[in-house]
Amino acid sequence: MTTILPSYVSGGWWTPDETADAAPVTDASTGEVLALVSARGLDLAAALEYARTTGQASLGILTFHQRAVLLKQMAQVLTERKAELYEISSRTGATKADSWVDIDGGIGVLFTYSSKGRRELPNTVVYPDGPVESLSKDGSFLGRHIYTRLPGVAVQINAFNFPVWGFLEKFAPAFLAGMPTLVKPATPTGYLTEAVVRILIESGLVPDGALSLVSGSIPNLLDSLRLGDLVAFTGSASTAQSLRSHKNVRIGGVRFTTETDSINASILGTDAMPDTPEFDAYVTQLVAEMTSKSGQKCTSIRRALVPRELVEPLIAAVRTRIDDRVVLGDPRAEGVTMGPLVSLAQRDDVLRQVGKLVDAGGRIVVGSTDAPSARLTDGSTRVAEEGAFVEPLLLQFDDGNADAVHTVEAFGPVSSVIAYDSIPDAVRLVALGGGSLVTSLVTHDPAVATEILTGIAAMNGRVLLLDRDDARSSTGHGSPVPHLVHGGPGRAGGGEELGGIRAVLHHMQRTAIQGSPDMLTAITGIWHQGAAANPDGTHPFRKSLAELRLGDQVLSAERTITLEDISHFAEFTGDTFYAHTDEEAAAANPFFPGRVAHGYLLVSWAAGLFVDPEPGPVLANYGLENLRFVTPVSPGDSIRVALTAKQITPRETDEYGEVRWDAVISNQKGELVASYDVLTLVAKEQRLPLSPT
Amino acid sequence: MTTILPSYVSGGWWTPDETADAAPVTDASTGEVLALVSARGLDLAAALEYARTTGQASLGILTFHQRAVLLKQMAQVLTERKAELYEISSRTGATKADSWVDIDGGIGVLFTYSSKGRRELPNTVVYPDGPVESLSKDGSFLGRHIYTRLPGVAVQINAFNFPVWGFLEKFAPAFLAGMPTLVKPATPTGYLTEAVVRILIESGLVPDGALSLVSGSIPNLLDSLRLGDLVAFTGSASTAQSLRSHKNVRIGGVRFTTETDSINASILGTDAMPDTPEFDAYVTQLVAEMTSKSGQKCTSIRRALVPRELVEPLIAAVRTRIDDRVVLGDPRAEGVTMGPLVSLAQRDDVLRQVGKLVDAGGRIVVGSTDAPSARLTDGSTRVAEEGAFVEPLLLQFDDGNADAVHTVEAFGPVSSVIAYDSIPDAVRLVALGGGSLVTSLVTHDPAVATEILTGIAAMNGRVLLLDRDDARSSTGHGSPVPHLVHGGPGRAGGGEELGGIRAVLHHMQRTAIQGSPDMLTAITGIWHQGAAANPDGTHPFRKSLAELRLGDQVLSAERTITLEDISHFAEFTGDTFYAHTDEEAAAANPFFPGRVAHGYLLVSWAAGLFVDPEPGPVLANYGLENLRFVTPVSPGDSIRVALTAKQITPRETDEYGEVRWDAVISNQKGELVASYDVLTLVAKEQRLPLSPT
Repeated sequence: MTTILPSYVSGGWWTPDETADAAPVTDASTGEVLALVSARGLDLAAALEYARTTGQASLGILTFHQRAVLLKQMAQVLTERKAELYEISSRTGATKADSWVDIDGGIGVLFTYSSKGRRELPNTVVYPDGPVESLSKDGSFLGRHIYTRLPGVAVQINAFNFPVWGFLEKFAPAFLAGMPTLVKPATPTGYLTEAVVRILIESGLVPDGALSLVSGSIPNLLDSLRLGDLVAFTGSASTAQSLRSHKNVRIGGVRFTTETDSINASILGTDAMPDTPEFDAYVTQLVAEMTSKSGQKCTSIRRALVPRELVEPLIAAVRTRIDDRVVLGDPRAEGVTMGPLVSLAQRDDVLRQVGKLVDAGGRIVVGSTDAPSARLTDGSTRVAEEGAFVEPLLLQFDDGNADAVHTVEAFGPVSSVIAYDSIPDAVRLVALGGGSLVTSLVTHDPAVATEILTGIAAMNGRVLLLDRDDARSSTGHGSPVPHLVHGGPGRAGGGEELGGIRAVLHHMQRTAIQGSPDMLTAITGIWHQGAAANPDGTHPFRKSLAELRLGDQVLSAERTITLEDISHFAEFTGDTFYAHTDEEAAAANPFFPGRVAHGYLLVSWAAGLFVDPEPGPVLANYGLENLRFVTPVSPGDSIRVALTAKQITPRETDEYGEVRWDAVISNQKGELVASYDVLTLVAKEQRLPLSPT
Repeated sequence: MTTILPSYVSGGWWTPDETADAAPVTDASTGEVLALVSARGLDLAAALEYARTTGQASLGILTFHQRAVLLKQMAQVLTERKAELYEISSRTGATKADSWVDIDGGIGVLFTYSSKGRRELPNTVVYPDGPVESLSKDGSFLGRHIYTRLPGVAVQINAFNFPVWGFLEKFAPAFLAGMPTLVKPATPTGYLTEAVVRILIESGLVPDGALSLVSGSIPNLLDSLRLGDLVAFTGSASTAQSLRSHKNVRIGGVRFTTETDSINASILGTDAMPDTPEFDAYVTQLVAEMTSKSGQKCTSIRRALVPRELVEPLIAAVRTRIDDRVVLGDPRAEGVTMGPLVSLAQRDDVLRQVGKLVDAGGRIVVGSTDAPSARLTDGSTRVAEEGAFVEPLLLQFDDGNADAVHTVEAFGPVSSVIAYDSIPDAVRLVALGGGSLVTSLVTHDPAVATEILTGIAAMNGRVLLLDRDDARSSTGHGSPVPHLVHGGPGRAGGGEELGGIRAVLHHMQRTAIQGSPDMLTAITGIWHQGAAANPDGTHPFRKSLAELRLGDQVLSAERTITLEDISHFAEFTGDTFYAHTDEEAAAANPFFPGRVAHGYLLVSWAAGLFVDPEPGPVLANYGLENLRFVTPVSPGDSIRVALTAKQITPRETDEYGEVRWDAVISNQKGELVASYDVLTLVAKEQRLPLSPT
C-alpha cells in the first residue's frame, strides 16, 4: 500500500481516516507513485488556534537573539541530514545542482537569518524603526516607531518548484519575528517539505506550536483567517488574484503578500558585442536559467532582449552551448545536467503554453517540442513517455510587440528572443511584462547601465548588473539571496519576501509611539535623552551586564582647553588644519570664531573624562556612531561629558555583550558641543579573565 | 447664479458645459448654497496622461532637494494667504481652532517635508535603502536596495473633514518623491481644497502637470489607472473595501493605500485616580476630541475604556467640563467653541448611528439628541434647523462586549464609555475594534504602560502615552504629525500615510540591485569599496564641490606607533584605561595582545595623515559615522589611511554642501584597523571667504 503523507498540526502528526479521494504523487522521471496526499477532515480552525495560542506563547518568551540561535541549530541539524533530502529531491526531477539550490539554498537562508538576527536586531522583542522624533520644544514629548509581532499565524501557500527553499525562506523571518508558521506545500513535491518538517520537529528545536504542516489541499483556507494572521502565497498570478479578493483580505485585515511567476527579461547591452566577455556571460547565464530546475523557476529568463544586429549571433551561441553542455535525463543517471519537469501534467501545460507562443508568432529556433530522448538510470538513452521530459526551447519573435511574448509563461525550459532598436525601446519592452521579479542587464558601460536602470527599476523587484567584473562572482539572474528583497511589482505579485530584516518586519506591525522620554525608554528598552538617569551610584564601568541598568550615568568633571593644548594636539597628531593653527584663517572660516579645538581632541578628552581605568567588566570600545560636532570650542572654554547607558544587548553565545552609551559633551555655558554613541563590549559577570577569543 | 466649482486638469482650469445634475454645496451653519459641483464630461484619461507625461517629466528633472525647496516656498505662499482660507473654512462649520488644525496643520506638513527632504534625502533622484550587502568573498559582487519613483500618478480620494490638511499631507510626500498628484476632494468641502490649489497654481511654483484637481465625482475612476499609479483613499471602510476589489488593484498592480475612520480607544490607566493629573488629562483630552472638528475626525476617541470603579467619576467630570467649556454655534459668532457638522445629511447620519448605539444598549449620559440651541451670528441663541448642529454626546455601555460599540461609528461629537476589569480585559476590548488608527493610554506607571502597549501595539497605527510629564506638550490623541505614521491595521484601512520619509517611499519602488562596485557607484551616486578610485590627482581637500568627483582619494604615508606615543596620549587625554597603560592587565583582556593604541589616537593620527592643512574649499569636519575598530594596534605597528570621496551633496540654498568620505585605516600587514565615514562641509566654488553664518 502506498503511504499517505501526514500533516503536523496542533502539536502532533495527523493522517486522514479516508483516502479514497487522495491525490497520487509520482516520480518525475519514472512515473512511479510515491505517496498519496489528502488533508480531508483536517480541523484547520483548531490547528490555527493552537498556533495562535500555544505557538505565540512559546515564541513570545524568546527574544530575537534566542530565536536566531535556534535557527542556526535547525540549519545544523538539516545540514547533517542533507543526504536523505538529496535522495528524496531527485524524485522531483531535480539534478544535484538543482537540489543544491533548493536544499543548501534553504539551509543557507536559516544561517543568514540567524546571523542577521543577532547582528541587526536587539536582544529583545521590540524593534525600533528610525530615529527619535522631537515633538516638543522642551523635550518632554517624543515620537518613535516600533515594530511588534503580529498576533496570529503566518500561513505559507507554496509552489511545487522549491519544496525546501520555498518553505524555509518564509519560515526563517516569521520565526525570527516570533510568528508561528503553518505551511501548505504544493501537492506534487510536498513529500520533500514533509521530510524537512519531520527533521525539524524530531530535532526538538521547534517551540511548541511554532510550526504546522498541512499536507494536501484545504478548500477555502482563507475563511479561517483573521486580523493578525498573514498569508504568503507563491504560485500563479491568477490564483493570487483570486485569494486577494477574499473578504478576509479585503475587509478582514489579513495581511496578504504574493510572489508570482513573472515574465522576466534579460537585456544584452548595446556594448556587449560577440567578442566581449559580456556576450559570453549573457549566453552562459541564459542557458543556465533555461535548464536550471528545467526552467521551473519564477525568476527564469523568459524574454531575451537583444540588440537587433546581435540576434543571430546570440541564437547561434545559445544553440552551440546547449548542444555542448545539456544532457537531458533522469537526475539519478550519470552525467545528466537537466532533469524532467515535475509531472506529466506540468509537461503538457508547458507544451500548451509554447503552442500559444508559436501561434502568436514565435518561431522555435533551438530545440524541438517532439518527445525527446532522455538518459535513464539503466544507461539507455531513449524516448521515455512515463517521464516528464522537455527539451530546452528557444523561440524568436520577429514582432517584439506581440502581446503573448510579454504575458504567456511556459513554466519550463523556454525563453524567447526579442530584438530591440534603442535603449528607450529596451526599457519599453521590459515594461510590457507588467512588473517583474528580476531583470538582468549585461553591459560593461556604466552610462548604459544607469540609463536602462533608471527606466526599468520601478518595474522590477531586483535588477542584476552583469559584466566582466562580476560574471564569476555573481549569484545569478535566477537566484534570490536572503540579503535582498525577492518579489516584484504588478504581475510579479506586488509582494516582498527576504531582503534581510525587511522580511522579519513583514511579520510585525509598525506603530508610532508618542510619550515622555521615560515612557519611551520603558517601552523600547533604549534610554532616551530626558529620561531618568542615575549619576550617583557606582561608576557604570564597574558594573557587569547583570548589574548595569539603562540610565546609569557618569557626569564628568570640567576640563579647560588652552591654546597650548590645541597646538600640542596639532603637533602630536599631525592634524595642522588651519582652523586649529592659524587664527586669522580660522576666523575667516564661516563656522569658526577663530582657532578652535580639534573634534578629535574633544572626543579623546571626553574619553579621559568618563573612563574608569582599572580592569573591570568593560572590555573594549569597539566603535562610535552618529558623532556630530555642534558648538566649536575655543581656547579658554571648558568641556564636560555625560555618559549614560543607552542600550544593553547581552549575547546569547558569548560571555559578554554590547553596551551602547549616550555621550554628550557640553561647554561651560551648557551649550551642546558634541553628541555621539560609544559602543563597548561588557562582560556578563564580574568574574575575569575571559578566555581570549 | 451660483458658481460652478472648477477643476484643474491637463494644465488648465476646466468647468463642465452642463450643470443640470451638479451637486449644490451649502454653508454648514446657515444652509446657504455656496457652489455647484460637477465633473461631468471631464476627460479623466487625458488628465491622467498629461500628469504621467508632462508631470513626470517636469518633476523628473528636479532632485529631492529642489523639490523640497519648492515645498517650502509653497508653504510660504499659503501662509501669506491664510486669512482667505480661514474665511472660507468657517463656511464648512470649522471654528478658528478647527481651521488651525486643517490649514496651519496642512501648511506645517509642507514645511516639515521640505526640511526632512533636505536633511534626510540625498540631493539626487535615487534613495538608497539600507547598507551594502557583500555577496562575494572577493568583494566584486555587491547588493543594495534603492528606491526610484513610481512612473504614474498619485491619485488622492479625500474625505470632507480636512479639505486642506487631507490634501497637503498626501501631496507633500508625493511631490518630494517626484510623482504628480491628482486630487479629488470630497464634494461638501471641495471649495476649500480648490482655493488652496488655486493659490498654488497662481504662485507659479508647481511644475507643469505636477498637480491636478478634479472637483466633483468621477464614476469608475479606477478604470483609468494602471501599474505605476497609486491611489491614496481616505474615507469610509466600506468604500475602501469596494475600491480594493477593483480589478486594476487586484490584477493591474495599482498601488492602493487607505486610511479609514476607526473605532479608536482611549484607556484610563488603573493608576489614574480622580485626584491625579492623569485623570484630569484624560478628561480634558476626551472632551477636546469629542468637540474638535465637532468630532468629525477619523482619529476621534469613540471608546473611553475606564476602570470600572472610575466610570461614574469620569462621566461626572466630562459632564462638568462640557457644561463649562463648550459653546455650540456658528463658528463666526463670538465665543463659539464648537461648530455644526458639515451638512444636514451628515447630521442625520450621525443621529442614525447614535440610534444604533442606543438600540445596542448604550445610554446617553451626557447631552441630548434633541435639536440643540446654537449661538448664531446675529447674537441670538436658538434652535436653528438650517444648521447641522449636534450636541456633544457621551454614551455608557453596561455591556462592554456589545458588538455595536466596537463597530458602529457615529462620525460626530460622540463617544461611549466602557468599563474594564483588568489590564488583559482592556487589551482585549481594544482589539475588538478590529484595528485602529490610534489608541491613547493615560498612565504614569511605566509597568502599566509597557504591559498594555505590548498587548495593543499590533492593533494600532499609533499609540499616545499621556501623563503629567507630557500632558502640556503632547500634540494630542487626535492629531497625526508629519513625523509619524498615520494609518492603522484592519478596520483603519491597513495603509500608512505621513511618517516622515516613509511616506515619500510609499510613492517609490524598492528594487534590489546587484552588481560590481563600479556599477553600484554609478547607479547610486555613492562610492562603494572596491570601485575605481583616483589617488593620483590633486589632493581632494583642494577641490570645490564643482570639481570633486566620487572616488577622488588620498592614500596617506605610513606612521609607526611607539609605546611612548601611547603613554603620551594616555597622559595628555587622561584616558588611562588599562588596555593602554598596563601590559599584564591588557594581555589578560580577551581582545588585546597586550598594551594597544587608543582608538581615539588612531583616528586623530589618521586625520593628521590625510589632512591638507591650508585654507581651501573644505570648511569643517562636522561629524563622523559608523566607526568600527577591527584590529588592535600594538607598539611598533604602523598605520596608514585611505580617504575617498563617497557622497557629494550640494545644498540648494547655501554656498556649500556636505561631502561624506570613506576612511579606512590599515596596518603594515594590510589588515583593516578601523573604518568610518568622515562628514565635512565643502564650498561649492573655490572663491573664499564665505560670509560667516
